[in-house]
Amino acid sequence: MTTTLIQGGTVVTSAGRFAADVLTVDGRIGEIATSIARPADHIVDARGQYVIPGGVDPHAHVKITFGGVPSADDFTSATIAAAFGGTTTIIDFAFQEHGQSLSSTLDDWHAALAASPPVTDVGVHLMISDLTDPAWIDELRAAPATGVSSFKLFMAYRGSFMVGDPAMWDTMRVAAETGALVMVHAENGDAIDALIREAVAADTLTPPFHASTRPRSTEAEAVNRALMFAELTGARTFIVHVSCADAVAPIVGAKARGMEVWGETCPQYLLFDESIYEQPLDQALRGIFSPPARSVADQDALWTALAGVGLDVISTDHSAFNLALRHERYESGGGFTAVPNGGPGLEERLALMFDVGVRGGRISLEQWVDLCCTTPARLFGLGGRKGVVAVGADADLVVWDPERERTLGVETAKSKVDYSMHEGRVVTGAPSTVIVDGVPLIADGELLDQPKRGFLRRAASVEATASV
Amino acid sequence: MTTTLIQGGTVVTSAGRFAADVLTVDGRIGEIATSIARPADHIVDARGQYVIPGGVDPHAHVKITFGGVPSADDFTSATIAAAFGGTTTIIDFAFQEHGQSLSSTLDDWHAALAASPPVTDVGVHLMISDLTDPAWIDELRAAPATGVSSFKLFMAYRGSFMVGDPAMWDTMRVAAETGALVMVHAENGDAIDALIREAVAADTLTPPFHASTRPRSTEAEAVNRALMFAELTGARTFIVHVSCADAVAPIVGAKARGMEVWGETCPQYLLFDESIYEQPLDQALRGIFSPPARSVADQDALWTALAGVGLDVISTDHSAFNLALRHERYESGGGFTAVPNGGPGLEERLALMFDVGVRGGRISLEQWVDLCCTTPARLFGLGGRKGVVAVGADADLVVWDPERERTLGVETAKSKVDYSMHEGRVVTGAPSTVIVDGVPLIADGELLDQPKRGFLRRAASVEATASV
Amino acid sequence: MTTTLIQGGTVVTSAGRFAADVLTVDGRIGEIATSIARPADHIVDARGQYVIPGGVDPHAHVKITFGGVPSADDFTSATIAAAFGGTTTIIDFAFQEHGQSLSSTLDDWHAALAASPPVTDVGVHLMISDLTDPAWIDELRAAPATGVSSFKLFMAYRGSFMVGDPAMWDTMRVAAETGALVMVHAENGDAIDALIREAVAADTLTPPFHASTRPRSTEAEAVNRALMFAELTGARTFIVHVSCADAVAPIVGAKARGMEVWGETCPQYLLFDESIYEQPLDQALRGIFSPPARSVADQDALWTALAGVGLDVISTDHSAFNLALRHERYESGGGFTAVPNGGPGLEERLALMFDVGVRGGRISLEQWVDLCCTTPARLFGLGGRKGVVAVGADADLVVWDPERERTLGVETAKSKVDYSMHEGRVVTGAPSTVIVDGVPLIADGELLDQPKRGFLRRAASVEATASV
Amino acid sequence: MTTTLIQGGTVVTSAGRFAADVLTVDGRIGEIATSIARPADHIVDARGQYVIPGGVDPHAHVKITFGGVPSADDFTSATIAAAFGGTTTIIDFAFQEHGQSLSSTLDDWHAALAASPPVTDVGVHLMISDLTDPAWIDELRAAPATGVSSFKLFMAYRGSFMVGDPAMWDTMRVAAETGALVMVHAENGDAIDALIREAVAADTLTPPFHASTRPRSTEAEAVNRALMFAELTGARTFIVHVSCADAVAPIVGAKARGMEVWGETCPQYLLFDESIYEQPLDQALRGIFSPPARSVADQDALWTALAGVGLDVISTDHSAFNLALRHERYESGGGFTAVPNGGPGLEERLALMFDVGVRGGRISLEQWVDLCCTTPARLFGLGGRKGVVAVGADADLVVWDPERERTLGVETAKSKVDYSMHEGRVVTGAPSTVIVDGVPLIADGELLDQPKRGFLRRAASVEATASV
Repeated sequence: MTTTLIQGGTVVTSAGRFAADVLTVDGRIGEIATSIARPADHIVDARGQYVIPGGVDPHAHVKITFGGVPSADDFTSATIAAAFGGTTTIIDFAFQEHGQSLSSTLDDWHAALAASPPVTDVGVHLMISDLTDPAWIDELRAAPATGVSSFKLFMAYRGSFMVGDPAMWDTMRVAAETGALVMVHAENGDAIDALIREAVAADTLTPPFHASTRPRSTEAEAVNRALMFAELTGARTFIVHVSCADAVAPIVGAKARGMEVWGETCPQYLLFDESIYEQPLDQALRGIFSPPARSVADQDALWTALAGVGLDVISTDHSAFNLALRHERYESGGGFTAVPNGGPGLEERLALMFDVGVRGGRISLEQWVDLCCTTPARLFGLGGRKGVVAVGADADLVVWDPERERTLGVETAKSKVDYSMHEGRVVTGAPSTVIVDGVPLIADGELLDQPKRGFLRRAASVEATASV
Repeated sequence: MTTTLIQGGTVVTSAGRFAADVLTVDGRIGEIATSIARPADHIVDARGQYVIPGGVDPHAHVKITFGGVPSADDFTSATIAAAFGGTTTIIDFAFQEHGQSLSSTLDDWHAALAASPPVTDVGVHLMISDLTDPAWIDELRAAPATGVSSFKLFMAYRGSFMVGDPAMWDTMRVAAETGALVMVHAENGDAIDALIREAVAADTLTPPFHASTRPRSTEAEAVNRALMFAELTGARTFIVHVSCADAVAPIVGAKARGMEVWGETCPQYLLFDESIYEQPLDQALRGIFSPPARSVADQDALWTALAGVGLDVISTDHSAFNLALRHERYESGGGFTAVPNGGPGLEERLALMFDVGVRGGRISLEQWVDLCCTTPARLFGLGGRKGVVAVGADADLVVWDPERERTLGVETAKSKVDYSMHEGRVVTGAPSTVIVDGVPLIADGELLDQPKRGFLRRAASVEATASV
Repeated sequence: MTTTLIQGGTVVTSAGRFAADVLTVDGRIGEIATSIARPADHIVDARGQYVIPGGVDPHAHVKITFGGVPSADDFTSATIAAAFGGTTTIIDFAFQEHGQSLSSTLDDWHAALAASPPVTDVGVHLMISDLTDPAWIDELRAAPATGVSSFKLFMAYRGSFMVGDPAMWDTMRVAAETGALVMVHAENGDAIDALIREAVAADTLTPPFHASTRPRSTEAEAVNRALMFAELTGARTFIVHVSCADAVAPIVGAKARGMEVWGETCPQYLLFDESIYEQPLDQALRGIFSPPARSVADQDALWTALAGVGLDVISTDHSAFNLALRHERYESGGGFTAVPNGGPGLEERLALMFDVGVRGGRISLEQWVDLCCTTPARLFGLGGRKGVVAVGADADLVVWDPERERTLGVETAKSKVDYSMHEGRVVTGAPSTVIVDGVPLIADGELLDQPKRGFLRRAASVEATASV
Repeated sequence: MTTTLIQGGTVVTSAGRFAADVLTVDGRIGEIATSIARPADHIVDARGQYVIPGGVDPHAHVKITFGGVPSADDFTSATIAAAFGGTTTIIDFAFQEHGQSLSSTLDDWHAALAASPPVTDVGVHLMISDLTDPAWIDELRAAPATGVSSFKLFMAYRGSFMVGDPAMWDTMRVAAETGALVMVHAENGDAIDALIREAVAADTLTPPFHASTRPRSTEAEAVNRALMFAELTGARTFIVHVSCADAVAPIVGAKARGMEVWGETCPQYLLFDESIYEQPLDQALRGIFSPPARSVADQDALWTALAGVGLDVISTDHSAFNLALRHERYESGGGFTAVPNGGPGLEERLALMFDVGVRGGRISLEQWVDLCCTTPARLFGLGGRKGVVAVGADADLVVWDPERERTLGVETAKSKVDYSMHEGRVVTGAPSTVIVDGVPLIADGELLDQPKRGFLRRAASVEATASV
């Protein structure tokens, strides 16, 4: 029996906070009490600190390539980076190639996972690009029972990831049957493609045109369309990286009429606005993600939706393509159109949201835990196991020091990527101890061990019906 | 040190459920663990049952009169009835008469409380009818610090409780300053008064005209107006007994733009529709409450809002005027206009909502706890103390047997009123043990003790910022 | 100089009504005065009757085939049928085949027109199905200057007429450049196709499944998407045959934010509801048009939008495939999926809308003229020429007898099709004299002449800015 | 028989424009034709100019006092000013004092009219402030038959004009019975009163606080409430001087659900924004009208609503209190609270709206006529008589020179007030000839005659059902 005792902290859950000691027993939370005075294998002093569930990031790309170039991260580096930031669960994506079966797609992913073992278990979503073979629909139907209970669809990136409405229908029908969750990247890829072609024709390829070729209305339209498909098929649906008020509105509308739909945003949409595209190239290139950074008014709307109604999860959309590569591609002649979309963020999410969100008065401490830990776990088949501080749950816990100040930057970051989106930003609040599976993994900035973990099998069906 | 140990149950909170034993120590929850094997003063077997926080009903009338006749209940009977139903906290209203100071109003209420001691502590809201004396505004400002941190306003009942917009402004300004919560009965009293006068002139005074003289639009208008005042003054606002989709919509809108506004409904709006007014008089008179019962479509909309966005609390609006009195008044010549509005419900709320809501698939078990216990406690200054199963919280706990079947009716009810709104309805699910202040108060339908408790002092300011 | 004098009538325009005589001179309206006492080539007694502009039907299919079978009508029969109903201007569609140039498409149409000369000039819209050859985009750009200033897009009928979003973009960009109008059949063809495939798989192919495979949300979604494209491209857009409240809503929203968008509905949506699909097959087959007949509540919403905000035009979507053919196809094994969508209506539009609309109190006399004559003329490049009773306008005029009663039916109809959608319906109100180009064409149910007319060249750009 | 012949102009109506000569006969329009070559008593050369109906201003205060001081204008000066601007019909208000009967109210008004005879007939609305005596409700019911078919209600100005919801109900019920129109000044007077009291307490009484004490939400709330009353009572309702997008929205919503409701705005809301309050006092005081000037975004929204959906009429809210008086009151110690609200505008309306609206590309020529002439006439019981160029209509016509440039200012203005809101603004477009009752009244800036006209009796019921 292995035990860890966390003493003197303030436990924070999505529902409230209270002073309590927490005892973990063999990888599970065994006891929560006013005071626990008992020997334990590990004793952690949490006085003056918060005890929160380990972070859950349901939208992190590890195995991904862009134009033949793989991400700078592998599973080992990505999970170490996440854990250093307080995130103890990530879910990656297995990308189906056109013409590839889903079993082959998952085999490839498992092989990659085995090749660079993670320090925390890693889940996986199936990214669907081609359901023209009925056998693949059968494979899709079988996936949730194997622990892969969420499917990803891209409505944008015409010519690569984008699927048409027929595949969206088929995927959602299977999701409705199985209780799986459908994640949707909602941008109208045809309209954006047309605008980009016009930009290419006009040779207007500098960073500001990345934003102007992806107007808000293309995002709002796609959300609206996806929700129509969700309503007709009955699929539970999760709109990823919502960037603007126009896209929040149809989500609120769908929630108000009782649909099981949720919205996600990411720190980059809360921290950057469209002025980033006017800055010097080295900075502007950090803003090439999709949807693009929007207005300050949109940032306010996103915070309002996180604190109130419309958005339920903060994830990272982590994607670790080097800044050097971004420069090289940009200079290649394609301008913004050639730059890999996305950016790294696994390690910084919890600290940014604590600093800007909680300390900045935008969200409560409980909401921070809910948005970054509890709700993502619940929606992605990990309810009751991850994202909570409750008896019987997995003992993934973080002792969070609310006063620790740090400067974010590539120097100290654990990801292998060569830049930070938030280089130089000073934040207050950091994990002092990170406990995974009941054992301290990180303490005071040191990795104590490097366990080899593997695939995180998730429940086959979304647990959608907790109180929020 | 007094201890009670609850063994073998499934703890249900607003955030989830898990198997655990719970130990209370001197009136507080001391420990929650996978298994607690220790002596205790009281041991409760909760195997196969749920362990939930005691119910919190923030909208229950005990000290109230209608046309000079007092309610059939006193604080003793009302709190016993509530406790038998699993509700361990109620909040009553102190009604300010026109021309009466608030201190006098509260003195009267405390005297009544002392005269019939409750078995659970009872909180109180201040019902404001007259702020024409500036001294009363000062008294209002001082009330939250004395544990009276919520104010009630009636926008209906012209000629009695109804206040005009100026008093609404003043009350909300004080609420904004102090962090108190403003409860609003939102119906346009002038329009309703005009319609009732027209009904009197036309001598159309049977029960269906109770509904037709209070159309949905009068409720929606009043909600909209109250929210405008809330927005301009900055007051946190709680719309009581929302009855229809038209009234939910502006609440959703206000939430979506970030306002601190919440909505409540009651079992009668979920269980009765307007056809009740066409039934035989003895039944139809049970439907004389305001707003009136609406359509089946409105019921659906209310359930959707409870499970999703728009409504946050289920209370009773308990009001115990005898059915005999209702008949007598109706026959007096005034028809529906002379009948006391409202009805009893304290004892039946949790069971009705478990049976129809949880078992009926409308809300989850967690939402039931949230709507009936956690959120009302949080909004009314009892966050962390009541409505939660968490270390350090008050040890008000209910062991809920999900399989126990009962027939509701006045025969077995504990309220002194002479009827039940739900006479003859069979429900499944009931409290087997009710623990108050760490001690079993009721077990297997027996009152084990009759403690004399008193005034429940609430925190001065609403705790509005948990994750929901 | 040829003159016709209409005496003693009440002139009705979209803006009002007044007693006046009207004198036409050489095909134009030359004079309107309190009293004109002058010799004329033709004198028409309009006492007790209305003098209105000839009807304008901008959505009538004449040259059309279904599964290789041509429509029962040709241009001669169709324009005679229209004229007998008081409609003196129709606009047909030239359907581009996949791979066909637009010039060839228009050549085919002109050849068909020449082969069966119409009795009134006939305009044409270009129905676009394929813009993959840039030369065709150039042809599209050139079309408005040749009098073809409106383009039609189908978002439904996957596998035949349906175009994808890229072609919608390209068409709308050209429309925005040239001032042409884009007509959109707005239904999500992919969702409908999936639902139909599911119906085929389930062998649920009776008429009610025609409606259930085309749910309202597929129409609302497509309207929303088309309007997003309209907003980004700047194209003036006309949503054809709006069938339900859900589809009216986004049009109202777009109008409210200043977009140049208009909505059309047809008599069949106002007169039939979904119960038609439950009727005996011979009747149910008359209801196979798309979008399908909806609910009675939707009918109310359409009337409200016609009388108020949201819908601007009533057209027919005339399509003359025989009922015998419909039966044959239905019995072929394909059920509803094999039946030609649409139905005839050219001759009946004005009378139905006068009887049900004006006499039924749904719209005013002026709105009837506006919806059926003035606004369609204005939007489709005929403003000031057609659809008005004004000095200088084309002398296409109808003397309308408001008391004449008729029974609609195939027996008396002039179209060559073998059925009427409204067989047996008795309507009050009919044209007594129809004047085309300043000369009486029909009087008291007799065709007085059979002139050979031809192509109606329309202004290159929509005149969108009159007062409505 | 007196005749006037207008030759060579372009007639502009709300429905279109066409080249035609117009002949008036004995005060009515007798003939409109391509060319009229006949002798006439007066011949007006309109070549290169527009022939439009005389302007109709349904919201002009002539008999009005503020704090005991009467307006600078009388009926003679006001109608001359209006006519010089091309407006040949105005409707004034008879203000009921508290406790005064309506017959006495109207008697007072008629006496004032007789004391300063107007050069064009003048209509009158009844401004209701007190319906506590049932006899006054009977008088109200009788008013439409006497040609007073519109009633005005103020929801603002607590303590003077403001009425409560009960009087709104009673007025609207009478309007619904009689077909009269209810004009509503929609601002929540109680909220504004509270904000003003707070401003007085804080001694923040400079012009910017005029705006901040009347926030948009107070206007939107009042519109919403008035429309609820309109819906329940069935009254046709006209919201005066809408100032902002928030207030347009509920009007659009009501129109979309089929209510007979219309919105008005005034040039000052289109031409001034809130920055006026930051300008030097002499200018800032010109901005003291209610609702106040709003944002540039609101101006855009108003133009959008005028050109599309939501607003139907442009009036002036003319009110001629001298600027000297405004300064004096402001300096009196009351600051903005002591300044008469409103400003003059009768003479400038048509020219401002032609210059900024039509020439500025905001509205079409036809919309200008519709908003300033046709629709106000139609809604206020003058449909077919005023506001149209149609055979049989009153011969009130304006020949409008679209190229004439003028500088607005008090020097050249005909009103007796000592300032212009638009001092120094250069506008293009002016009346060259103004014909009233078939006779030229003004030509080339000269008053040709000074007829003594009187009371304009209007139809008892609103003609609400023309095509718009």
